[in-house]
Amino acid sequence: MPQRADTLIEARWIVPMTARDLVLEQHALVIQGGLIAAICPIEEARREWDCAETIKLPEHVLLPGFVNAHTHVAMTLFRGMADDLPLMDWLQNHIWPAEQRLVDRDFVRAGTRLACAEMIRNGTTCFNDMYFFPRETAETASDMGLRASIGHVIIDVPTRYAANAGEYLAKAEEMQATFQALPRISSMLAPHAPYTVSDDTLKQVLALAERLDLPLHMHIHETAAEVAQSVEKYGMRPLARLDQLGILSPRLLAIHMTQLTDEEIALCAARGVSIGHCPQSNHKLASGAAPIAALQGAGVGLALGTDGAASNNDLDMLAEMQSAALLAKGASADASVLPAWDALAMATLGGAQAIGIGDRAGSLAVGKMADCIAINLDHPATQPVFNVVSQIVYAAGRDQVTDVWVEGERLLASSSFTRIDWPALRQEVQDWRDRIRGK
Amino acid sequence: MPQRADTLIEARWIVPMTARDLVLEQHALVIQGGLIAAICPIEEARREWDCAETIKLPEHVLLPGFVNAHTHVAMTLFRGMADDLPLMDWLQNHIWPAEQRLVDRDFVRAGTRLACAEMIRNGTTCFNDMYFFPRETAETASDMGLRASIGHVIIDVPTRYAANAGEYLAKAEEMQATFQALPRISSMLAPHAPYTVSDDTLKQVLALAERLDLPLHMHIHETAAEVAQSVEKYGMRPLARLDQLGILSPRLLAIHMTQLTDEEIALCAARGVSIGHCPQSNHKLASGAAPIAALQGAGVGLALGTDGAASNNDLDMLAEMQSAALLAKGASADASVLPAWDALAMATLGGAQAIGIGDRAGSLAVGKMADCIAINLDHPATQPVFNVVSQIVYAAGRDQVTDVWVEGERLLASSSFTRIDWPALRQEVQDWRDRIRGK
Repeated sequence: MPQRADTLIEARWIVPMTARDLVLEQHALVIQGGLIAAICPIEEARREWDCAETIKLPEHVLLPGFVNAHTHVAMTLFRGMADDLPLMDWLQNHIWPAEQRLVDRDFVRAGTRLACAEMIRNGTTCFNDMYFFPRETAETASDMGLRASIGHVIIDVPTRYAANAGEYLAKAEEMQATFQALPRISSMLAPHAPYTVSDDTLKQVLALAERLDLPLHMHIHETAAEVAQSVEKYGMRPLARLDQLGILSPRLLAIHMTQLTDEEIALCAARGVSIGHCPQSNHKLASGAAPIAALQGAGVGLALGTDGAASNNDLDMLAEMQSAALLAKGASADASVLPAWDALAMATLGGAQAIGIGDRAGSLAVGKMADCIAINLDHPATQPVFNVVSQIVYAAGRDQVTDVWVEGERLLASSSFTRIDWPALRQEVQDWRDRIRGK
Repeated sequence: MPQRADTLIEARWIVPMTARDLVLEQHALVIQGGLIAAICPIEEARREWDCAETIKLPEHVLLPGFVNAHTHVAMTLFRGMADDLPLMDWLQNHIWPAEQRLVDRDFVRAGTRLACAEMIRNGTTCFNDMYFFPRETAETASDMGLRASIGHVIIDVPTRYAANAGEYLAKAEEMQATFQALPRISSMLAPHAPYTVSDDTLKQVLALAERLDLPLHMHIHETAAEVAQSVEKYGMRPLARLDQLGILSPRLLAIHMTQLTDEEIALCAARGVSIGHCPQSNHKLASGAAPIAALQGAGVGLALGTDGAASNNDLDMLAEMQSAALLAKGASADASVLPAWDALAMATLGGAQAIGIGDRAGSLAVGKMADCIAINLDHPATQPVFNVVSQIVYAAGRDQVTDVWVEGERLLASSSFTRIDWPALRQEVQDWRDRIRGK
């Protein structure tokens, strides 16, 4: 007697990311109540499950949705506003003035909507964000159906969101209950960076993280200038200072980390710190590159992020995986470094683990949430198929993502949005462009 | 009284690549007899031209088609066959044995067809190839409607194509008349690389190039090992040896060039050599990277190529431009290096100039061939639009290319092939995959 379930997905290939190099052919995935109920050969699934709907993916690979480990999604409204500039010029003369003038609740809602549309279209099922007005980001992402880890931002700089560290911290604590009630939303504390958060504030952040049992999301060692400035101000490099304050622990997801000595790599491994690698942003802003081969060798947990679309300029995890793999090979002068499988692991399970949801997302296994995507390899750029994972990492384009499920809900169906009215959203975005331009 | 013409294309934006940073809004391009007859405001074009067809591109940018300056298109059948391996392991243990076993006229025709489908889909209107059985590549490209520069390959290695240098040279000379008769086909002499072509052969290549007035296409300084081997064998670096032989001249398009001293950069500038940069291939094979900032500073002509899909793993010039820009910034620790405009110039006019057709292709100007493409920016990943060229280089994906014209003929119309039966071609490619796998 077959068991009842919601959805049967029959795929040419499934890459579950549960065991190295495992690619299942002609397998099915069964979804019941938002969770994965079975993964088995198609014939067996048809015999054993009675599903309300069946979706056939005859030329597709089904895999976990991408987990983008570092975003500032509201900033998607600034995409392409100021390119080809050094980091501090870009920040001080373009991004920060625009933020001061424009960023409010409405801006964050609109930017988040645009980013969610882009992410659903490109196969991202979860993102880890840091920005002002996080409640609006969380509510909007939840409305759009995406999974998200929303950072409670904390910075010793007054903004339209909060006047001082105390207010940022108070908002974080008071908002946490709201976040816990939102479907598909988890959260982290997000102290901005070593150069914008004082020792005193960091101590309060750590105490709050321990009290609420939240992980930490922080930009660290993004540029050589940041490290030099810390040595001048504190007499030590940022990582040493953070270690003295007790910040380095399995709780921490450290973003960028382009400047690392061998001792610092060993320290990260010893403390259980995870690293969020943003290769395209780091190159575009000429900040450097995290030493991926050495970090992998030391056993440091690795995740992958796009950073904000104002610097990247997109939220495309397929392109980011390819960049990560190519750059790691180039930087280490060894073409075998960061093979396609490892890049895909960073973009899926590695990201889920780094933001503290690896037990329920990031791979396809019975009992985990049905966060999965289909990529159609029936395209001139991905034929012939010798190796499915190579095709995903080195050749597939984001528009080959045809279907996206988050917790069993289909947000993209045969390349069409199910929840989003794109013409209306595009108009909203174009109105914001005119406001940003000062028209 | 309006003049008659074939096609009126009305575009939201036109980026003609005729003057730096020039972006025309609400302009039209008129095509007559395969050539560009006019570029002017839409209203003016409607008044002054009576066209057989009008194509409206309300959210699109129209620009010159991409010129891929370095390909081995037949090798597209090997895409993803052997990844994450060092160059010599990849060549000696995977590519060369597979070539020896499989590469014949039929293989080259099928691989070229697949590559042309991919290139038409991604907005490439011209490619510069080097491979065995060039007649089959030329005929197939011409059949598919693409423009191509086909290299007469010359190598001191016996293959199924020719037994020795004399035979390669004889085939080049004898085939040249055929090539000249093929629509949209030009040609170059393509001595493979300094380590596979002897001094004696190179002297004959140069004499033939001068006799037939053909440019030269050659892999040079791809890896440090190549340079070291030359120093050992010839007592000098490959570039010095090629200069002694008279190869360095405006005739030469040198591909890769990842190993260059300041003196060699100055030498290339002095000799008028053009360079074909292949950033993704060079990184994936961990070969190094051409020093783009320094080459630009010295005034060396720059083109962009994907290399073969066996190493890249695609023929995607949009992705290659983004990689070129990001890697140049990263390598020089300066975010202002290779801005979006310069990357686009390398991918269009720079390529056309490097292969000797810059007088008639590579930019949109009256009298030039109507080789142009449309990219639809109405996509969540390319909104809002502040800067059209930034969107093209840093955010647009290949599937946003909706229309492709070569010499006025529409090869891709609203994202659909006009000449290609993709299901039939896919089946042919899958049959080749089975043969390659030895099934």
